[in-house]
Amino acid sequence: MTLYFNLAELLGSRIEQGLYRPGQRLPSVRALSVEHGVSLSTVQQAYRLLEDNGLVSPRPKSGYFVAEDRQLPALPAISRPAQRPVDISQWEQVLELVRATPRPDVIQLGRGMPDVDSPTLKPLLRSLAQISRRMDMPGLYYDNIHGNALLREQIARLMLDSGCRLGPADLVVTTGCHEALSCTIRAVCEPGDIVAVDSPSFHGAMQTLKGLGMKALEIPTDPITGISLEALELALEQWPIKLIQITPSCNNPMGYIMPEARKKALLTLAQRYDVAILEDDVYGDLAYTYPRPRTIKSFDDDGRVLLCSSFSKTLAPGLRVGWVAPGRYLERVLHMKYISTGSTACQPQLAIADFIAQGHYQPHLRRMRSQYQRGRDQMCDWVTRHFPSGTRASRPQGGFMLWVELPESFDTLRLNRALLEQGVQIAVGSIFSASGKYRNCLRMNFAARPTAQIEGAVRSVGETALRLLDTEHAGE
Amino acid sequence: MTLYFNLAELLGSRIEQGLYRPGQRLPSVRALSVEHGVSLSTVQQAYRLLEDNGLVSPRPKSGYFVAEDRQLPALPAISRPAQRPVDISQWEQVLELVRATPRPDVIQLGRGMPDVDSPTLKPLLRSLAQISRRMDMPGLYYDNIHGNALLREQIARLMLDSGCRLGPADLVVTTGCHEALSCTIRAVCEPGDIVAVDSPSFHGAMQTLKGLGMKALEIPTDPITGISLEALELALEQWPIKLIQITPSCNNPMGYIMPEARKKALLTLAQRYDVAILEDDVYGDLAYTYPRPRTIKSFDDDGRVLLCSSFSKTLAPGLRVGWVAPGRYLERVLHMKYISTGSTACQPQLAIADFIAQGHYQPHLRRMRSQYQRGRDQMCDWVTRHFPSGTRASRPQGGFMLWVELPESFDTLRLNRALLEQGVQIAVGSIFSASGKYRNCLRMNFAARPTAQIEGAVRSVGETALRLLDTEHAGE
Repeated sequence: MTLYFNLAELLGSRIEQGLYRPGQRLPSVRALSVEHGVSLSTVQQAYRLLEDNGLVSPRPKSGYFVAEDRQLPALPAISRPAQRPVDISQWEQVLELVRATPRPDVIQLGRGMPDVDSPTLKPLLRSLAQISRRMDMPGLYYDNIHGNALLREQIARLMLDSGCRLGPADLVVTTGCHEALSCTIRAVCEPGDIVAVDSPSFHGAMQTLKGLGMKALEIPTDPITGISLEALELALEQWPIKLIQITPSCNNPMGYIMPEARKKALLTLAQRYDVAILEDDVYGDLAYTYPRPRTIKSFDDDGRVLLCSSFSKTLAPGLRVGWVAPGRYLERVLHMKYISTGSTACQPQLAIADFIAQGHYQPHLRRMRSQYQRGRDQMCDWVTRHFPSGTRASRPQGGFMLWVELPESFDTLRLNRALLEQGVQIAVGSIFSASGKYRNCLRMNFAARPTAQIEGAVRSVGETALRLLDTEHAGE
Repeated sequence: MTLYFNLAELLGSRIEQGLYRPGQRLPSVRALSVEHGVSLSTVQQAYRLLEDNGLVSPRPKSGYFVAEDRQLPALPAISRPAQRPVDISQWEQVLELVRATPRPDVIQLGRGMPDVDSPTLKPLLRSLAQISRRMDMPGLYYDNIHGNALLREQIARLMLDSGCRLGPADLVVTTGCHEALSCTIRAVCEPGDIVAVDSPSFHGAMQTLKGLGMKALEIPTDPITGISLEALELALEQWPIKLIQITPSCNNPMGYIMPEARKKALLTLAQRYDVAILEDDVYGDLAYTYPRPRTIKSFDDDGRVLLCSSFSKTLAPGLRVGWVAPGRYLERVLHMKYISTGSTACQPQLAIADFIAQGHYQPHLRRMRSQYQRGRDQMCDWVTRHFPSGTRASRPQGGFMLWVELPESFDTLRLNRALLEQGVQIAVGSIFSASGKYRNCLRMNFAARPTAQIEGAVRSVGETALRLLDTEHAGE
């Protein structure tokens, strides 16, 4: 661990213990440098890290202050989905969401799109162009079925950050995380099998279960600590579950990071009942804290965790480059990959390998992490300001999605229809449930840098929700 | 139809009727120009077309002559696979083939790789580079789930050549033809269902059936006219077949083009027994004759044909851009596409749309068609010269694959192992059968322009086969 990181941790815990109060001035850079015997720049780095984490805020010419407590919407309660395996519905709503072509006149708060306008992505575009000009035209050839070897080396290196010690031969490159998910599910399950999922859960993964003929068993999930291990254990007792499918780090749609101890306990549970785990880590590198959280995969010692990820959220979705670390299911996943797309487009793989090898990935991540963290704070403020009172919202610890809960009787499908006339689109909550729950919830994207136009859109969502609530009550 | 095409057809039929004999001098360009009242250049174009089709050969300063009869290997007999549904085997052999990373020291006669060195592909690389430099970075965004609209427009236009009148909304872009096949199969079939296939048949499509849990029923197939309609009808009587999966135009691995009348009869049969047809047309644009053959899809009036294709064989496989025209199964295919990869990489789609819109596709196809036709003739000559007597071979009418049949007891798995030590790789016949038939067959690629090195590789195959045959007989 580096010096500045240790110092940041020390200061952070003092703030959290209340030694420094919100709004209070913190020791000067010079004073801390003398106190801890470190250089001025080390202290500055430590403060910058705390700033990134939202704990301190700098004031020009006055130094660093403890960040003011902000007023936040209340957290949603732990989810209570139906405790039995169900056939998954909601395909029509998902299709509506994914079919929408980006239109300049519609603000799409519903899509899972990162901000791809960052200047830190420019070197990636340069690499893409350079590969097209290479005389040996590597982008035109069939790739090895495992995926490009240079890229797999780079991915294996990146995965060290989450505690995974894997080699390139342990990885299979896929066409986005979608293909990673479907290959993984088909590698482990047969049609009719039961898969336990966190709830709410990523609609793409659930539609994959649906399309492949599996049943989903939604497990109660806490908005801070993730899937309930107690409820999961009961379910494992009761049903012949084949696979546990979760997004424990920077969950989509809730944004929580499951604590490390609970990740370990989940793995132990899976070992005890001999089930596989599909760990979707697609947002994991976007945790606001650094170093990023460890994956369940990093504790896996018998190959039962299939880690699925991609560069769609960290770099850009249009590249369609993801990967699986399938553990003991490698051969099965290779077969599923072969029959699903044969191989993945070469040029994007080569460009990404180049981008990482040249050292552009970490600076890009740093920038996006802090942008998304500021985006979260801004979005929470807007929800506090513009949404009906009583609105609840998640506390994302990474990624760029906010989960919002309106009063129980509310219908976000109606809200979405009303909003489309105003040029705003949200993701309705029901698509995050296998059984159409969460009709009163919605998901909004805060990836883009805040603008008056985006605030206007969020205000429209809040005001339209209020109007619909009023009509509802008037009709009672 | 153009003038030169009509003239070429007239001259071609005179040659085929024996009015001009092999080696005989044909009328001069001037004489034909006067006789038919067309320009000199029209006659020249007609002769060039006949030359492309292997019917005439020019001799410098002497004019055009009817091509000499070439000595050709005998045709394989009609295939006789087991007439019952089987679980598909051979995954290990397929994995060996597709896992091989291209190595400069191994001549891969086994892969399905087109020649991507043609200068007519240069504009495609230019487009790929230009898209990377565009400020709006279209290659980074999620695409619409149907695929890029510009590309679908261009594909719809291209499909007019095979007699299909479809709009962009009738098409779904996929990540190569592989994804088109797997989405199609899953859209139509449930695990356990029986699918009738031509035999030998593309290993990728059969492995997809295997991976998705379907059973294959291999139907006897003629090396000139394709799948036996008589045998297929018997099978339809006898078994609850859900889907007929075939490659009727420029078949892989045999290269035949099923005659139009038989394509229509097949469709009628499918209608009578109410089954769907998966028509793999991935080599269809590479027919040596122009205009290219019509697809079964072009006669389909009730949406039961799902046409699958891609640019992997006509342009380059590394682009991973294919498509489905799913007829009445559109919604199901969309769902399967969504769960399989979400969407297809944007940049290659945009580059291909550009390439076609700027008029580069047809000139490229013309060049490749005639190169592949010459490659076929050359490969047939080499097989005649270097292979054991009694060797049989297909008569490809398009594409770049030759199917070779050695004596019945021969084992091409052993041959392949012996060849790898010599730096040569072939595709063993058994992977083209669901039940491991065709162990005495192999497939070779003639896409690359002939070189001494390639001839050396083909000679190695022939000579090693002869050596193994001798050892076999010595051991008897």
